[in-house]
Amino acid sequence: MRVGGVPRRTIWVESDGWSIGIIDQTKLPHAFVTERLTTADEAAFAISSMLVRGAPLIGATAAYGMCLAVRLDPSDRSLDRAYDILVVTRPTAINLRWALDAMRSHLATISPSERLAAAYRKAAEIADQDVAINRSIGEHGLSLIRASVARKKPGEVVNVLTHCNAGWLATVDWGTATAPIYLAHEAGVKVHVWVDETRPRNQGASLTAWELQNHGVPHTVIPDNTGGHLMQHGRVDLCLVGTDRTTARGDVCNKIGTYLKALAAHDNGVPFYVCLPSPSIDWTIEDGIKEVPIEQRSGDEVSKIAGRTADGKVETVTITPAGSPVANYAFDVTPARLVSGLVTERGICAASSAGLSELFPERRTRAS
Amino acid sequence: MRVGGVPRRTIWVESDGWSIGIIDQTKLPHAFVTERLTTADEAAFAISSMLVRGAPLIGATAAYGMCLAVRLDPSDRSLDRAYDILVVTRPTAINLRWALDAMRSHLATISPSERLAAAYRKAAEIADQDVAINRSIGEHGLSLIRASVARKKPGEVVNVLTHCNAGWLATVDWGTATAPIYLAHEAGVKVHVWVDETRPRNQGASLTAWELQNHGVPHTVIPDNTGGHLMQHGRVDLCLVGTDRTTARGDVCNKIGTYLKALAAHDNGVPFYVCLPSPSIDWTIEDGIKEVPIEQRSGDEVSKIAGRTADGKVETVTITPAGSPVANYAFDVTPARLVSGLVTERGICAASSAGLSELFPERRTRAS
Repeated sequence: MRVGGVPRRTIWVESDGWSIGIIDQTKLPHAFVTERLTTADEAAFAISSMLVRGAPLIGATAAYGMCLAVRLDPSDRSLDRAYDILVVTRPTAINLRWALDAMRSHLATISPSERLAAAYRKAAEIADQDVAINRSIGEHGLSLIRASVARKKPGEVVNVLTHCNAGWLATVDWGTATAPIYLAHEAGVKVHVWVDETRPRNQGASLTAWELQNHGVPHTVIPDNTGGHLMQHGRVDLCLVGTDRTTARGDVCNKIGTYLKALAAHDNGVPFYVCLPSPSIDWTIEDGIKEVPIEQRSGDEVSKIAGRTADGKVETVTITPAGSPVANYAFDVTPARLVSGLVTERGICAASSAGLSELFPERRTRAS
Repeated sequence: MRVGGVPRRTIWVESDGWSIGIIDQTKLPHAFVTERLTTADEAAFAISSMLVRGAPLIGATAAYGMCLAVRLDPSDRSLDRAYDILVVTRPTAINLRWALDAMRSHLATISPSERLAAAYRKAAEIADQDVAINRSIGEHGLSLIRASVARKKPGEVVNVLTHCNAGWLATVDWGTATAPIYLAHEAGVKVHVWVDETRPRNQGASLTAWELQNHGVPHTVIPDNTGGHLMQHGRVDLCLVGTDRTTARGDVCNKIGTYLKALAAHDNGVPFYVCLPSPSIDWTIEDGIKEVPIEQRSGDEVSKIAGRTADGKVETVTITPAGSPVANYAFDVTPARLVSGLVTERGICAASSAGLSELFPERRTRAS
């Protein structure tokens, strides 16, 4: 997508041919800063500190982290060490383990002396595959936006609500939940996005709003509390969100608060779709509420917030009373019964074991 | 309730015998600052700028605002002018109009030369009545907390979730939703409060957390997105919230986001009670979603936030991208079907025309 008019991806090999460029997303929306990763440890830090975030981008970063490890030492031991430090950086994202497994199993078949080039080729393949997947998700999801258009009066704007950032910043390009929006916008469909602020890290207000604005898509930032009211009053035509992990029966683990929006959509008859690349499906589990471990992050993410002061500096301020404890659960699970459908690179299916099995007949789930 | 160990109310007549003391709640939780109101215009400013907020405290402040007008000019014209500037300060709070009507109709029966003392007596009566009402709400609501205790194992803490600030800062004393909590705490019941941050103005993180901490009640601040996850995992025993206006059939208008918590409570079988003084019941309307006008406030409340810097100063920072539009709806309406019951000063009733009519048989609703 475009930043200041220039098309970009979120991760790239630098002009030196080996170091990895990323956008420091913790600096957005106040400053556009890129960083250069040179070791697997730096890649792990970039993931755990959320310089990069979003399941697909985490996967791509981990894959390139393996490349950086191979560059310094192509041995099995080095690969195992890089795998071990990268796999623990975020507990929830299924793509992380998927990308690392793909890298390690591929490189295991290749002699150490040839692993370096093979690693970069494989990581590029993972990145390119993500772009292709998201583009496909976008094309399938576009049909949902067009269906919303068909339900409106001619010329009326379609209002899409999204939560967190399942945008191009969370992927290598296009995004998942935003891919249909970008494609609709480029096709000349009048679309407006309600952007949930997404406390505590404000990925909506900081990242989704920033990327929509850079690409020229009309949008409005709203507090997370607002969506239910808007749906009650017919101001939301469609909800599109991403996911970090979807279970084999269609339960959706996504940024904390997604469940509340799904409840409101269900209560008001608003279609609620989840956009996901198939690598984020965890075929090994069924009951998301019981089985997905929910990451608890530092309370500082709730009690402190960064913003621009009147004189343009970025300052971090504390917003809770000194001494009041805080809790910070990063994700919640939306049960499949509240999800209108899953938008994957292969098409749209019901959020159910049957729906997923139809699109992915090659997968054997525990239930089948 | 106590601040730094000292029992206080939120509004008082100063030692000069006529000017009105309030806490500037916009400075909390970073500084405890009191202000002195000397005219009806200053009282109107204190309400519209949310130095004071919360339906009952707004009512008491408006009542004292009428006293300040009478002090300068006891004529009918002066009363009407004060009424007019005070009644438009906040569109949603029903207590505002109720208190102003009570003051004006009372003073209309009294000759201008005797209005000053009568005004202060009437305003004090309105304030004292609020304290008595809240204490009663607390006693009735305490039975709900005791019922939660009875469902737990011996010694287990009861977890109450609340949204926004329906605390003593929103009233003259005790609060509405917090009154049962304060009484439980004083009775030695082990109670812990999940405090919704309550974006965009953060009344939970700024005010509820501050007052619970000052009074010594265990609590944890959580982002508004978190409550659904906690309820899915059995971590919430009871929801207690306040209301700005409840309709004759039990629809509840309260701080934006209340509806989302009510949906989650309903979905997880968690009791969801609304604590309200009867003056906040609007007997003239039934359908809250269709009939309650929802205040839209400045987008700056969403895009800017104040907090303490590392060196202890209070600084306001902008957290959204420059140029991204924001929307700020202040309230939403929770339909009666999602409300387990209404806790009033007369007792607890079903959120329905029948339930309210039983407790308030003297009221004729449109439906009856």
